[in-house]
Amino acid sequence: MIIIAKSTVAAQHIAQVLDHQNPIKPVFVHDNRVALAGVKTLPETELQEVKSEIVEIITNHHSAIKSSRDFHPEDTIIKTPHSVIGGQHFTFMAGPDSIESPAHVEAMGKAVKAAGATVLRGGAFKPRTSPYSFQGNGEAGLKAHRAAADALEMDMVTEILDTRDVDLVDSYTDIFQVGTRNMQNFALLKALGKKQKPVVLKRGMSATIDDLLNAAEYIAAGGNDQIILMERGIRTYDNKYTRNTLDVSAIPVLQSLTHYPVVADASHAAGVSKFVAPLALAAVAAGAQGLMTEIHDDPAHAFVDGAQALTPDEFKLLADKIRQIREAIK
Amino acid sequence: MIIIAKSTVAAQHIAQVLDHQNPIKPVFVHDNRVALAGVKTLPETELQEVKSEIVEIITNHHSAIKSSRDFHPEDTIIKTPHSVIGGQHFTFMAGPDSIESPAHVEAMGKAVKAAGATVLRGGAFKPRTSPYSFQGNGEAGLKAHRAAADALEMDMVTEILDTRDVDLVDSYTDIFQVGTRNMQNFALLKALGKKQKPVVLKRGMSATIDDLLNAAEYIAAGGNDQIILMERGIRTYDNKYTRNTLDVSAIPVLQSLTHYPVVADASHAAGVSKFVAPLALAAVAAGAQGLMTEIHDDPAHAFVDGAQALTPDEFKLLADKIRQIREAIK
Amino acid sequence: MIIIAKSTVAAQHIAQVLDHQNPIKPVFVHDNRVALAGVKTLPETELQEVKSEIVEIITNHHSAIKSSRDFHPEDTIIKTPHSVIGGQHFTFMAGPDSIESPAHVEAMGKAVKAAGATVLRGGAFKPRTSPYSFQGNGEAGLKAHRAAADALEMDMVTEILDTRDVDLVDSYTDIFQVGTRNMQNFALLKALGKKQKPVVLKRGMSATIDDLLNAAEYIAAGGNDQIILMERGIRTYDNKYTRNTLDVSAIPVLQSLTHYPVVADASHAAGVSKFVAPLALAAVAAGAQGLMTEIHDDPAHAFVDGAQALTPDEFKLLADKIRQIREAIK
Amino acid sequence: MIIIAKSTVAAQHIAQVLDHQNPIKPVFVHDNRVALAGVKTLPETELQEVKSEIVEIITNHHSAIKSSRDFHPEDTIIKTPHSVIGGQHFTFMAGPDSIESPAHVEAMGKAVKAAGATVLRGGAFKPRTSPYSFQGNGEAGLKAHRAAADALEMDMVTEILDTRDVDLVDSYTDIFQVGTRNMQNFALLKALGKKQKPVVLKRGMSATIDDLLNAAEYIAAGGNDQIILMERGIRTYDNKYTRNTLDVSAIPVLQSLTHYPVVADASHAAGVSKFVAPLALAAVAAGAQGLMTEIHDDPAHAFVDGAQALTPDEFKLLADKIRQIREAIK
Repeated sequence: MIIIAKSTVAAQHIAQVLDHQNPIKPVFVHDNRVALAGVKTLPETELQEVKSEIVEIITNHHSAIKSSRDFHPEDTIIKTPHSVIGGQHFTFMAGPDSIESPAHVEAMGKAVKAAGATVLRGGAFKPRTSPYSFQGNGEAGLKAHRAAADALEMDMVTEILDTRDVDLVDSYTDIFQVGTRNMQNFALLKALGKKQKPVVLKRGMSATIDDLLNAAEYIAAGGNDQIILMERGIRTYDNKYTRNTLDVSAIPVLQSLTHYPVVADASHAAGVSKFVAPLALAAVAAGAQGLMTEIHDDPAHAFVDGAQALTPDEFKLLADKIRQIREAIK
Repeated sequence: MIIIAKSTVAAQHIAQVLDHQNPIKPVFVHDNRVALAGVKTLPETELQEVKSEIVEIITNHHSAIKSSRDFHPEDTIIKTPHSVIGGQHFTFMAGPDSIESPAHVEAMGKAVKAAGATVLRGGAFKPRTSPYSFQGNGEAGLKAHRAAADALEMDMVTEILDTRDVDLVDSYTDIFQVGTRNMQNFALLKALGKKQKPVVLKRGMSATIDDLLNAAEYIAAGGNDQIILMERGIRTYDNKYTRNTLDVSAIPVLQSLTHYPVVADASHAAGVSKFVAPLALAAVAAGAQGLMTEIHDDPAHAFVDGAQALTPDEFKLLADKIRQIREAIK
Repeated sequence: MIIIAKSTVAAQHIAQVLDHQNPIKPVFVHDNRVALAGVKTLPETELQEVKSEIVEIITNHHSAIKSSRDFHPEDTIIKTPHSVIGGQHFTFMAGPDSIESPAHVEAMGKAVKAAGATVLRGGAFKPRTSPYSFQGNGEAGLKAHRAAADALEMDMVTEILDTRDVDLVDSYTDIFQVGTRNMQNFALLKALGKKQKPVVLKRGMSATIDDLLNAAEYIAAGGNDQIILMERGIRTYDNKYTRNTLDVSAIPVLQSLTHYPVVADASHAAGVSKFVAPLALAAVAAGAQGLMTEIHDDPAHAFVDGAQALTPDEFKLLADKIRQIREAIK
Repeated sequence: MIIIAKSTVAAQHIAQVLDHQNPIKPVFVHDNRVALAGVKTLPETELQEVKSEIVEIITNHHSAIKSSRDFHPEDTIIKTPHSVIGGQHFTFMAGPDSIESPAHVEAMGKAVKAAGATVLRGGAFKPRTSPYSFQGNGEAGLKAHRAAADALEMDMVTEILDTRDVDLVDSYTDIFQVGTRNMQNFALLKALGKKQKPVVLKRGMSATIDDLLNAAEYIAAGGNDQIILMERGIRTYDNKYTRNTLDVSAIPVLQSLTHYPVVADASHAAGVSKFVAPLALAAVAAGAQGLMTEIHDDPAHAFVDGAQALTPDEFKLLADKIRQIREAIK
């Protein structure tokens, strides 16, 4: 249940009256409206004392407020040094899965920039299912990534796995990325909520739409409104031919519910390079405002996830088709 | 395990030698090759006697043979009086969910034909979750549907629920449709395998890709090779905002595995009209060779599933965008 | 929305007033109450004319009425020649997956009877994923099954796949079985609703609890109240080590919602014989009123699903433990 | 692919030869065997140079080695001040969902101890879907929890959410708990791998069995072998009547694959108190070596998850039945 109070003072008073164990919080929303979050559904009788201070009571709404288009109708548009993300803009984010070497990330960056990418992706800290798999090159990777992004005049996006690394990663990157397995790592989300830097938040493997909005709300509640939501495939009963199932409907659904940009990662959804392009095109046709793609010039020897990497040439072809689809669905 | 025999005679001999309870069947595939289906994985020693009659042993292959592109590389193209389905062709199949009246189905048919549809869909036998929901108008519905299709020079496609109705429905329709809930109604599939008429086979709610290919194989094994596979959304853990989850990756995956046309039903996948268009566009961008859409001029009073119906105008707009996307991905 | 009318006459009048396309049906429930099924949710204003004839309006209820414990509080208890199923009774149903020969089914029956089974299971019509797999011995299987059941003074339960076979199977069996793949084969359910013989209805692979209750309602609506619901494992994202995921919670959930007996099939849930016993014990501890188990004296050479069959000795051990657990949870 | 080397020296040499980007690691397993983890599947030709140093090559094995029963056949038994966990022992872990006050946690502890619990559960850091929900009492909660455990001579188990809190929580608790949402928070798992204290690792909402074993391996690889695996319900397509779906088969499956104790949390699986007992009994009948249960003396006013809490009396009744089932399945 969400209560909209007449004013900040009213909100504080209502919170005081209704509060018990749960610290009810006033959340400032557009047009001087103040929403009270964390209120349990209450019978009308318990609201008598504060009735005159209430503008509206909203039931049947997911608990994310700052993330909700109901309280923030216009699209959030995020500006980074080299990109504009959200609204009618389309952003290509591409690069190698992991940062392998300074030369390699720069070469990959050059290739994707030529195809239209403005954001250079790459992982220095890799969340691998097995502890015996390559865990990323750590700070050396961050350095190489930063250098390549600077040289190419691109934005850098990289994954953060640990609250203890937030400042370190912050000192290198333009955009943080929170991976699927950490979508509900609330300590990490809170830490990123205190930064003034965009965060790409990837949907968890079995996260509902509401779960994703609430995860975004953790970042927003801390004061950071620069959030980019990413659909990357969910876990379903069939994964024989693809690694995950791209939930393409999540794109228009999220766009109807939230003002944040919604982008797609077709590489992890497909898991196999030959299906990356059709899934990417599908995501764009469904309205995605950006695409993250993994590329590699020698997929067979990629340190991580080579099977799902496009070659630079395949990426270029895909980017051209995407621009045509954007034209078609205008 | 699939065994390819040197000849028909060889196949019959191998079947005789290896057969125990399972009636191993020779399946004729392209170029005079004969595949033996239903063979359990056997150690080499048990194959000694027939080794010289074997051309090839294929392991790690789903059990569908006639449906497999490995044995039939070129696309199957299906010709009906008014449509060409498969290959590079794109087919619009549209109409009301259920046949409500002769006038209504004709009006809906007229609208979708104007937008480019050549196949008029409509249900006379409706598979409803509850026995107390409207079950369709039965033979009266079939008659009205046929009359409208004839008047408009369109093809008719309608769902068949019961083996006892196969001849009845056959006497009216151009294309049979097998619904999600009957994808593994093997008695029905076998009955349709004996007809020489196209069958639209909808994927079951939790059918794997292999399950769908095997279901198609039931029809093909009976002698009917005119099969159209339809992705219509699968059941996943999240159905708050859409009725099902369109598995858009099924489209390119199926096209890589089978030669049958693969089409999509965005209406049932979305379940809500406002999400039908983005899902339809996504399916087309992913390579779907056709689209089935439900329309209604007065969705609020539709007999069945009004919430997911497009209006004729919305359908027209969608069809135009689809043609542009087809152009873009050529 | 379910409306409870004052009387049959009232129900008929209300149905007349509210009816449009949907044939609203009066459903007789306990204590002379008459429920109106198939009513769409209506605003109060549209009910003015019939308000005085309405006893109660129930919202937020699944659409199954005759299946609901709300309208039929006491347990349904089903009596067959050799078994009492439901309530505080526990029924062992066991036998081979498919009827292989007269001697074999009788030997298996003898073994399971010695362990406490009163119902002899076995398939003459087998729903196989591939058309090339063994499809069952048909009527010869039914005959052998009947003969064994008679010789051993047991009840016979066997699967029915096709509406055209209902009379044939009826002439042999004591209990019909509807398999997972046909749970929403509504034509078949309707046909069985006209028989006065118990039906074991297996839950579909991705059927919700409400789907299962509504499927049962198809049988009940036809006039056959002898329904046994069977949980047999659902399809989830992980099937590496078991064939399906036994949804053990479905057992107490169903028992809270419906009065029909709820039994479990641990064989198909496990898919591997070594996990059949722990799953069976779990189902019994959760309150299952019966258990169906597949056994075979030579699992490696079983015609169908040998991997999940218990040997007669394993079954005996399991049956003894089950009796102890029934004692423990009394 | 797992390679078993003849000796430590051999392992180091093989690692050197085969290593490229992936740091192949020798993992010491029982009986002086050394397994090489992180080896990609290689053709025989690439192994020529080190062939004589290899004892065995194991394919088709999940990548967890220290967690695997294949390399550590006997059960791991964990001893805490007041409990013995694993093997033939059964451990009751119970207490309030969150630590509400010193008096409350002590009262709850007293009640569960009387019923047989030796481990007192309770959360001071709560991972809540919404940032506006109660997030736990933090260090004050830890203190109260510790004091209650000491007063009652019980073990304390509490959840850890953040790598930065590991030392803090370590200074209070006897057993760490990693929650569902952090099962693949690899930074946290690595941090706990460096502690010499038991860790309860809850299965992720859509974690496969292999995912769970690999997550455990992160802890084990760091040197901490005191791991307790917990099944707590997975996310499936149906959550209308229960919060999650208890995957009861995970219990015997895990016990066949790993030597770690496997326990169950029926509270989160059910989500509704009336279904907690049948699920708990099912888990025990399936072989669970312990049970975690949430209790509250006033569920309607619990700070968190009151709907799924048992009252102390209900818990006592359940504990008695569990002891009888343990007797029955011996």
